[in-house]
Amino acid sequence: MQRRSFLKKATIGAGVAAIGAPAIAQSLPTLNWRLVSSFPKSLDTLYGAPEIFANSLRKATDGKFNVKIFAAGEVVPALQVLDAVQNGTVECGHTASYYYLGKNSAFIFDTAAPFGMTARQQSAWMLHGNGMKLMRELYASYNIVNFLGGQTGTQMGGWFRKEIKSPEDLKGLKFRIAGFAGQVLSKLGVVPQQLPAGEIYSALEKGTIDAAEFVGPYDDEKLGLAKVAKNYYYPAFWEGAAGLSFLVNKKQWDSLPPAYQAAWEAACFETHVDMCAKYDALNPPALQRLLESGAVLRKFNTSVMDACFKASQETYAEESAKNPQFKKIFDDYRVFRNMEAQWFNVAEQAFAQYSFNKKL
Amino acid sequence: MQRRSFLKKATIGAGVAAIGAPAIAQSLPTLNWRLVSSFPKSLDTLYGAPEIFANSLRKATDGKFNVKIFAAGEVVPALQVLDAVQNGTVECGHTASYYYLGKNSAFIFDTAAPFGMTARQQSAWMLHGNGMKLMRELYASYNIVNFLGGQTGTQMGGWFRKEIKSPEDLKGLKFRIAGFAGQVLSKLGVVPQQLPAGEIYSALEKGTIDAAEFVGPYDDEKLGLAKVAKNYYYPAFWEGAAGLSFLVNKKQWDSLPPAYQAAWEAACFETHVDMCAKYDALNPPALQRLLESGAVLRKFNTSVMDACFKASQETYAEESAKNPQFKKIFDDYRVFRNMEAQWFNVAEQAFAQYSFNKKL
Repeated sequence: MQRRSFLKKATIGAGVAAIGAPAIAQSLPTLNWRLVSSFPKSLDTLYGAPEIFANSLRKATDGKFNVKIFAAGEVVPALQVLDAVQNGTVECGHTASYYYLGKNSAFIFDTAAPFGMTARQQSAWMLHGNGMKLMRELYASYNIVNFLGGQTGTQMGGWFRKEIKSPEDLKGLKFRIAGFAGQVLSKLGVVPQQLPAGEIYSALEKGTIDAAEFVGPYDDEKLGLAKVAKNYYYPAFWEGAAGLSFLVNKKQWDSLPPAYQAAWEAACFETHVDMCAKYDALNPPALQRLLESGAVLRKFNTSVMDACFKASQETYAEESAKNPQFKKIFDDYRVFRNMEAQWFNVAEQAFAQYSFNKKL
Repeated sequence: MQRRSFLKKATIGAGVAAIGAPAIAQSLPTLNWRLVSSFPKSLDTLYGAPEIFANSLRKATDGKFNVKIFAAGEVVPALQVLDAVQNGTVECGHTASYYYLGKNSAFIFDTAAPFGMTARQQSAWMLHGNGMKLMRELYASYNIVNFLGGQTGTQMGGWFRKEIKSPEDLKGLKFRIAGFAGQVLSKLGVVPQQLPAGEIYSALEKGTIDAAEFVGPYDDEKLGLAKVAKNYYYPAFWEGAAGLSFLVNKKQWDSLPPAYQAAWEAACFETHVDMCAKYDALNPPALQRLLESGAVLRKFNTSVMDACFKASQETYAEESAKNPQFKKIFDDYRVFRNMEAQWFNVAEQAFAQYSFNKKL
């Protein structure tokens, strides 16, 4: 659309020039788009991702394709990015698809699924499995085209006031955790709580909640939770990796010249690599600082993990029975994930298990 | 802006009509570059990477910047990619930097180092540590600018005619393995052999060599080694990940318009994600097929790994004493790698150890 409208303008331009016929007809249009993020500026890894993206796109298009970033709440609230892109309020957004599981539970597979894929496995499924194809089919009914937009790696299980020694300790636990993982944990008696990041500290201090999960050391450090809930559990079985996504209004996407579409896609890949690399570089020193400030690192034991795995399997089955789109994507996701797990258990795991315990 | 840009064009059009001078001075140049690969076409993951790259670059530059790929041997031999780029025989290349450790042993850190970083850790070091800065300093003395060009993930240890039950079994072993890893293993009595891929099968069949390492299941399958050396060992402690690189002649790089430089960089990132995703998608079914065809999966035991780790540490120390550039990069590499290992041992490993042993 954009391209056709540009050609029309160029023709008019040439018409004005009449005899001189300037050779500028092939030049690409100047565009100014708006991107809404689901994240506040304070989370510089997440909010920073579309900045990396927009910078790459602007430079590759010789300064012509500009995307202006708006933090959560500046144009639309954090969790209305999908709606804003769908409705054409803005051209594009950056978000985590699983925020929209209320619209369709199948959205979780674009972000994270309990005991699901790790960062590399998720990228493999998206790019060389059926992942991207399946997620695009789902997004198509929302007039949206989705792209890879970064990854966090395996997240931490969160901050707990008391130790979790057995599945019994989960009963009645008021845990700040949302979405599909909340659904899984509620089977074990957890009472999932929804709470904005800014309110977690005081809720834990007052005891209004017993535990809270967020992301990983670098982001968690900003909330200062070690003082009010020192037990820092791992891993987040519900987020072996969390994938972020760029969403583009379908009509706007179709209007782009092919060169801009190609530059867009490449910029998404740049962002995809960069975000995970940034987390992987920033998390280790943040974890050290957290431990120095009093956090106590604890691993969910096998009895807890087993109970959570069983509850996850039940939730997958229930959701598959309820939602055919969920079933379709999950059936593909699980086969791919199981095959990945088998291979990653060989060279990758043998290397990690030995090497990560040695110092060079 | 769309409107303003139209107005501007209309104005230029009118101006041209007045004086008759064509307004094409700002349009970007058409370029045709040659890229030499270190890999044969048969290795479609490795040879295919610059194809992904060139396709992205061509499309993002509206068909103007074309890079033609030449397989190993078509313009220069496989291991002379660096020289060809340095001398300006071609504008650019795609290779593994550690092939050039004969020129400078510090080149290994751009590809893989024994008990070194995994794929994600390597990307983190390159992009958000000092890795890229240090490697660029090294490459600058060869008139080359380097870029990320894909990763293989942790490789397999290779094919062995006999079992390796203790470090004693390595003594006198004629092992097809090159470079720095060969140096490490020679400390344990291994006799490293250099052999083109096409000659491995018959050498193993005849017993001219006792073992051979290559890449991972997908590439290894093509060599058909399960029939002549069925013990398929893991992991390659010398390649926790192997990074590939794009190399560009410095003068050629500097001659590029900034828009082409930006499109180039983004296309490198696209390739970087895509290659690893492709390996991660293709290796699992290849491993299954190899096992069905008679390969026997074996893990290097702790006594073997311990001996190799000790030999690696000695080799690092010796090389650091000999080569100040090696020492400078290794000192940075090891500190980063040790910190990464500590963090990856928490959430990432706890998730992998539990989850990879379960089927969804």
